[in-house]
Amino acid sequence: MFENEFYHLIQKQDLQLPELFRSLKTIVSSLGTSPVLSNDLVCLFPKVAQKPYVRLQTQSTPHISAPLKVAAVFSGGQASGGHNVLVGLQQALQNLHPKSLLLGFKGGPDGLIHNRYEVLTKERLLGYYNTGGFDLIGSGRTKIETPEHFQSVLQTAQHHQLDGLVMIGGDDSNTNAAFLAEFFLSKNITTKVIGVPKTIDGDLRSSEIEVSFGFDTATKVYSGLIGNVARDAISAQKYFHFVKLMGRSASHVTLECALQTCPNFALIGEEIAYHKMTLSQITHALADLMSQRANMGKNYGVGLIPEGLIEFIPEIGVLIQELNAAQVSENSRKLLTSLPASIAEQLQDDRDPHGNVQVSKIDTEQLLIELVKKELAQRTSYRGKFNPVNHFFGYEGRAAYPTWFDASYCLALGYTAAILIDQGHTGYMAQVSNLIKDPEHWSVGGVPLTSMMAFETRKGKLKPVIKKAYVDLEGEPFRCFLAQRGRWGVEDLYRYPGPVQYFGPHEVVRQRPLSMQLEQHALTYI
Amino acid sequence: MFENEFYHLIQKQDLQLPELFRSLKTIVSSLGTSPVLSNDLVCLFPKVAQKPYVRLQTQSTPHISAPLKVAAVFSGGQASGGHNVLVGLQQALQNLHPKSLLLGFKGGPDGLIHNRYEVLTKERLLGYYNTGGFDLIGSGRTKIETPEHFQSVLQTAQHHQLDGLVMIGGDDSNTNAAFLAEFFLSKNITTKVIGVPKTIDGDLRSSEIEVSFGFDTATKVYSGLIGNVARDAISAQKYFHFVKLMGRSASHVTLECALQTCPNFALIGEEIAYHKMTLSQITHALADLMSQRANMGKNYGVGLIPEGLIEFIPEIGVLIQELNAAQVSENSRKLLTSLPASIAEQLQDDRDPHGNVQVSKIDTEQLLIELVKKELAQRTSYRGKFNPVNHFFGYEGRAAYPTWFDASYCLALGYTAAILIDQGHTGYMAQVSNLIKDPEHWSVGGVPLTSMMAFETRKGKLKPVIKKAYVDLEGEPFRCFLAQRGRWGVEDLYRYPGPVQYFGPHEVVRQRPLSMQLEQHALTYI
Repeated sequence: MFENEFYHLIQKQDLQLPELFRSLKTIVSSLGTSPVLSNDLVCLFPKVAQKPYVRLQTQSTPHISAPLKVAAVFSGGQASGGHNVLVGLQQALQNLHPKSLLLGFKGGPDGLIHNRYEVLTKERLLGYYNTGGFDLIGSGRTKIETPEHFQSVLQTAQHHQLDGLVMIGGDDSNTNAAFLAEFFLSKNITTKVIGVPKTIDGDLRSSEIEVSFGFDTATKVYSGLIGNVARDAISAQKYFHFVKLMGRSASHVTLECALQTCPNFALIGEEIAYHKMTLSQITHALADLMSQRANMGKNYGVGLIPEGLIEFIPEIGVLIQELNAAQVSENSRKLLTSLPASIAEQLQDDRDPHGNVQVSKIDTEQLLIELVKKELAQRTSYRGKFNPVNHFFGYEGRAAYPTWFDASYCLALGYTAAILIDQGHTGYMAQVSNLIKDPEHWSVGGVPLTSMMAFETRKGKLKPVIKKAYVDLEGEPFRCFLAQRGRWGVEDLYRYPGPVQYFGPHEVVRQRPLSMQLEQHALTYI
Repeated sequence: MFENEFYHLIQKQDLQLPELFRSLKTIVSSLGTSPVLSNDLVCLFPKVAQKPYVRLQTQSTPHISAPLKVAAVFSGGQASGGHNVLVGLQQALQNLHPKSLLLGFKGGPDGLIHNRYEVLTKERLLGYYNTGGFDLIGSGRTKIETPEHFQSVLQTAQHHQLDGLVMIGGDDSNTNAAFLAEFFLSKNITTKVIGVPKTIDGDLRSSEIEVSFGFDTATKVYSGLIGNVARDAISAQKYFHFVKLMGRSASHVTLECALQTCPNFALIGEEIAYHKMTLSQITHALADLMSQRANMGKNYGVGLIPEGLIEFIPEIGVLIQELNAAQVSENSRKLLTSLPASIAEQLQDDRDPHGNVQVSKIDTEQLLIELVKKELAQRTSYRGKFNPVNHFFGYEGRAAYPTWFDASYCLALGYTAAILIDQGHTGYMAQVSNLIKDPEHWSVGGVPLTSMMAFETRKGKLKPVIKKAYVDLEGEPFRCFLAQRGRWGVEDLYRYPGPVQYFGPHEVVRQRPLSMQLEQHALTYI
C-alpha cells in the first residue's frame, strides 16, 4: 500500500497549549488601558476606538457559555498554519459548548459577500491538522470595501446569526476587520469581529504582536534551501547564486534568512532607503564584493535579495510613481534607458488592471545580475569569472507543512479568537505572546485593532490602515547582521540549517526565528 | 551561543553498516563469472576485461592486511553523501591497518593530474560526516583524456606509491576509471582503481548497481518542494506551476518526483522520444489538459518537466545537431522561426567553448509556457485563465544534507571500495545491493566497469563509455505512472511528501525511492 507516512505521522503530533486553555470555562477577561489614538481615528471608529487591551486570565469559578456560531475566513496569500487556526477555533468552540458551530467561508472575503460556506465539524477538519495551505476552504484577495460589500457581509452575518467572525489575514484584512467591527456595532449587530495575524512577510507585528504566523515556516524553508545552495556554491566554486526571497515590501524574511545562513551579501530594503542608495551605488558595492572575492580566488558565492527591494531604491520609486502617473521626468527617462532592456520593458509594459507597474513581477535579481555583469566587464582590474545563477524562493514556503512553532502558535491563536468572541470582544486582533517560552507559558489576549492603525496615502487618498512593520535599523537583529556581514562577505562562514524537522530533539524542532530570539535577548549571536 | 543544532545532531547520528563490515579482516572475495563482452571492448581493455564479478563474504579465519595508501577524488557535480564515502573509506582503511592513509585529491581529477591533495585523517573528517556537498576537497569536471593526463596521474600514483585510487563520479568518470585501471595494469603499476556510482540524475545504474548515490536526496528535496507548490496551487487556485527538474538527459528524477507528488502532468523524455512526439504535439496535449481543467473551473495546477526534455524531442534534436554543425536545413529553419524569440536566441547564441548549443541552459519550462499560452490564445473554446509560474529545482537538491538512505549507502560504498582495494581488485565499481533491506542485510561486492560499457558516438567518434540508463518504459515505475496520470491530470490527487526527516520513525526517515521500491516489487502503488 502506498502511504504518505509523513502526513500520517504529522497528523498525530501532540501540540501543547497555553496552560490557561486547560479549562476554557474559567477564563475571564482582564481589561487594561485603552490605547491613545489620534482624533481622526477616534472619529472614524467611534465605538471600536474606545476598546482597552484585553488579557485572558483564569478565575476559580467556571462560567456557563451559550452555543456560539462563528465564521472563519482566510484572506490573501497562503501562510503555513492556517488550518490549525481552524482546528483551534473548532476545538475551543466545542469545548465551550457542544452545540457551538464553526462555519468556514469559502474563497476568501468573497465567500462572506456571497454567503458561500461549509460547516467545519471535527470530522471535516480531520486530515487538515498540521498541514500547510488554505485548501480546506480556500482564500481570496477581495477586499470588503464598498457599501454594497459591507451590506452583503451584514446580511450573511444576520442570516446565520453569527456570534463571531474571524478574519485570518494580513494588514489589509485586519484593517477590514476593524471597519467591519465598527460597522456591525453601528448597526447594533452583535457579531464580534476578531483578526488573526497572518503573513509570511513578517511585517504585521507590533510591540504586542510578536510575529505573524507563517513567517517561521517560510523563513525556515527558504533558509534550508539557501544553505543547500551555499554548500553547492562552495563545493563547485563556479557560480554566484542570487537568491530573491518573497516577502513583499519589508525585508524581514531576507534578514531572518541572512541570520540563519550567513550569506556573502544580503540587501535590506529599509537600509537602502535610509541611506538613499542609488541603483548605481548598489551595483558598485556588489561589484566591489565580486572583485574582492575574485582576488582571493573565490569566483562563487551566495547573496540574498528581498522581493520588494526595488521599491526601496529612491530613484526607482520615483520612476515607478511617474510611470504610474504617466508623467516621466528627464531623470527617470535617463534611468529607464540605463536599465537592461528586459527590465525596462517589464516596467513599461506589465501593468495591473489599475494601470500600475507590477513591482512583484520585476526580476530584481536578474536586474542586479545584469548591472553587476556590465560593471565588472568595465573594470580592467577585474580578472575573475562571474557566473551568476538566479533563484526565487517564494511559493515553496507559503504552503509548506507548518513548523512546530507555527503549528502550535496557530492552534493557540484559534483558541484565543474563540474565547475573545465568547467573552464578547470585538475589533481585536488575537494575541498570543511570550512566544519564546514553552507554549504552556504563553500569554493570551486581544489587541485593539485600532491601536495598530495609522493614516497612509493609498491611491492618492489618506486612509486608515494597519501600519506595516519594517525592519528596525536600530533593532538587535539588524545590528547583529551589521556586525557580521563584513566577515560573511569575504570569509565563507555559511551556516547550513537543514530541512525543517518534526520528530527530533526540542532544540531542533522548536527553534524560534533567530530574529525573535535576538529581539527578546534570548540568543547571543556571534 | 548561536548553535547550528541540526548540524550538531546529524553529526552524532549512528548509521548501520552491512553485517559483513563488523570484522573487516575476515572478509574474502568470492569470484563469480566474467561478463560477456564484445571483442572491441576486450581489445581495448585486454587486462581489465577478463575480470569476474566479485562478491565480498566472511570466512572464519582473519587475514592480516598491510598498511594501504589510498587516494580519493570527486568528479563532476555535487551529489549528497560524498563526504560519507570519504568517512567510510577512512574508517575501513584504519580498521584494516592503523598505519593506512587516505589522501583526498583536490578540485576533482585535475588534482590528480597536478598532485594537489591533503591527508584525510579522522580529525580532518570531523564535521563532514553526514553533510552535503563536496566542499572538503572540492570537485571538478576535468577528464583524464590525453596521454599527458594519463602520464601525470601515473606519476602521482607512483610518487605516493598509491595502493588504490577511488574515483567518485558519474558515467564519464567511471569510464575514466576503467581506462586508468587498464593503463596502470599495462604499465605494471599496482595502484588499484575503484569507481563509486555518484549522480543525482539516477542514470548510472544497471542490473547490479541499484541506484547511484545522491538520487534519493535530490528527489526527496525536490518532491518536498513540489508538494509545497502543489498545496499552494490548490489553495490559491490561481497559478499553473511549471517545474523544471535537474537530471540532465534521463528523466528518472522527474519520474520519481511524479510518483512522490502526483502532479497534473509530468513529461518523460524517453516516452516522448519513443513516440517521436513533436513540440507541437506536446504543446497541444498540454493545452488540452489546461482546457479540460478550465472547463472544470480549475485554472491552476502543477506540472513537471525534465531538464533534458528538449533533447528527446526528435525535431529539436535534429535542429541542435544542425546548429552544432552550422548547417541548418529548411525544416529546422522553420522550426526555429516558430519558437519564441528568447528561446531561438538561446539556441543560436549561447554556445559552449566547443561551439555547441548549451542544452542545459535552455529554458524548457519557459518554452512550453509560451507555446501553451499561444495555443490557448488561439482556441476560441478556451475560456479559462492561464497564469503560469516557472520554477527550476536543481542546485537546491545537489548538496543538501544526505537522507538517511544516501548517508548509509555512501558509508557502505566507502567501506566497500576500501575492501576491494585491500583484496587487490582493480577496474571495478563498488557495489552495495539489496538496498531495499535494512543495511545489516545489504550485500557488497564489485562490478567490472567494462561490464557496464558500450560503444557510443561522441563528437563524431565511436567511444567506449559506461551506458547511461534511461527510464524503462516497460518497467514498473513508468507503468504505475502511466496507469495513474490520467486521473492526476484532472482530479487533484496531489501528495505532499514534506521535508526530509532525520529523527522520526523509520517509515518516514528510511523511505527508499518509490521507483526503487516499485522495481523491487516492495510496494503496491495505487
